[in-house]
Amino acid sequence: MNLEESYIVQEIIDPTESLKQAFRRHASGVCVITLNDAAGSPVGFTATSVTSLGSEPALATFNVARGASSWPALSSAEFVAIQMLNEGSLELAKKMSQDHTKRFLDDDWFVEPTTKLPIFNQVNAVLICKVRERHEVEANAVIVVEIVSGLLAEELPSLLYHHRGYVVPGERQS
Amino acid sequence: MNLEESYIVQEIIDPTESLKQAFRRHASGVCVITLNDAAGSPVGFTATSVTSLGSEPALATFNVARGASSWPALSSAEFVAIQMLNEGSLELAKKMSQDHTKRFLDDDWFVEPTTKLPIFNQVNAVLICKVRERHEVEANAVIVVEIVSGLLAEELPSLLYHHRGYVVPGERQS
Repeated sequence: MNLEESYIVQEIIDPTESLKQAFRRHASGVCVITLNDAAGSPVGFTATSVTSLGSEPALATFNVARGASSWPALSSAEFVAIQMLNEGSLELAKKMSQDHTKRFLDDDWFVEPTTKLPIFNQVNAVLICKVRERHEVEANAVIVVEIVSGLLAEELPSLLYHHRGYVVPGERQS
Repeated sequence: MNLEESYIVQEIIDPTESLKQAFRRHASGVCVITLNDAAGSPVGFTATSVTSLGSEPALATFNVARGASSWPALSSAEFVAIQMLNEGSLELAKKMSQDHTKRFLDDDWFVEPTTKLPIFNQVNAVLICKVRERHEVEANAVIVVEIVSGLLAEELPSLLYHHRGYVVPGERQS
């Protein structure tokens, strides 16, 4: 077939507008990533970029803006905790993407005994990870981590980000 | 609070098992990525690792196994097309993750005039991208691309991968 016969209805010339329009139509799982800063204080943020890289060894990646409040801690941290959110952690997802001084004020997290990482209570799963590589690209960075161990909680429907809002998974297709 | 008071019900010691269990609970948007090999033949695969990296300049990343059939082409390609799938492209998602010799036999794709990239008809959005960086990590690679332009099609509910099956977005939470 050719372009004229296809379902394509619009061409976008501007790269930034192309990215925004396409990713609005792309749904992502929502995570919170936590760590400690150099002084040992808890730091964390909501991330929709967590993805698996390989299973032997167990590797994952996520992307961050180097202008974010968590970047100074992340640029030197040895360990991070990736936490998969669920429909019960909607308020947590919002809190961890707003004022960074208010993210650890509530009694909704505990300290993981081995790594001392802050872990939120209301999540589906936790991956304790060692930071392995940081690749700076323009004003951003790609972080590669190796999984150390995991924690599973009582499972609720996963939290997703889609069309600039939060949703849960719907009808199964196959 | 402490670990004993939390919703955590299981600790997993093995890193690979931790990764598998946690990512089963993590939903991902489903894309197809296409390119041409050195001989100009179309190559492509289903990817659940596509994520935005930054908007100025417009950047995205995806992860691949270097043992995959598409890797030889991907290791030298200048351009790739990232295509966001929808509920109408369920069979395409399956086809592009199975026998690689059968992925371009149907009349369901066209050639993008400028880059000559193969583009599938039944998708929500297309990002024409220039490959910018390839970071090899163990048997895998992280690919960083810069967006050149975009195509939007008639929009249907996005296709997601969750608990090893395909789903569409469900109820909006906020």
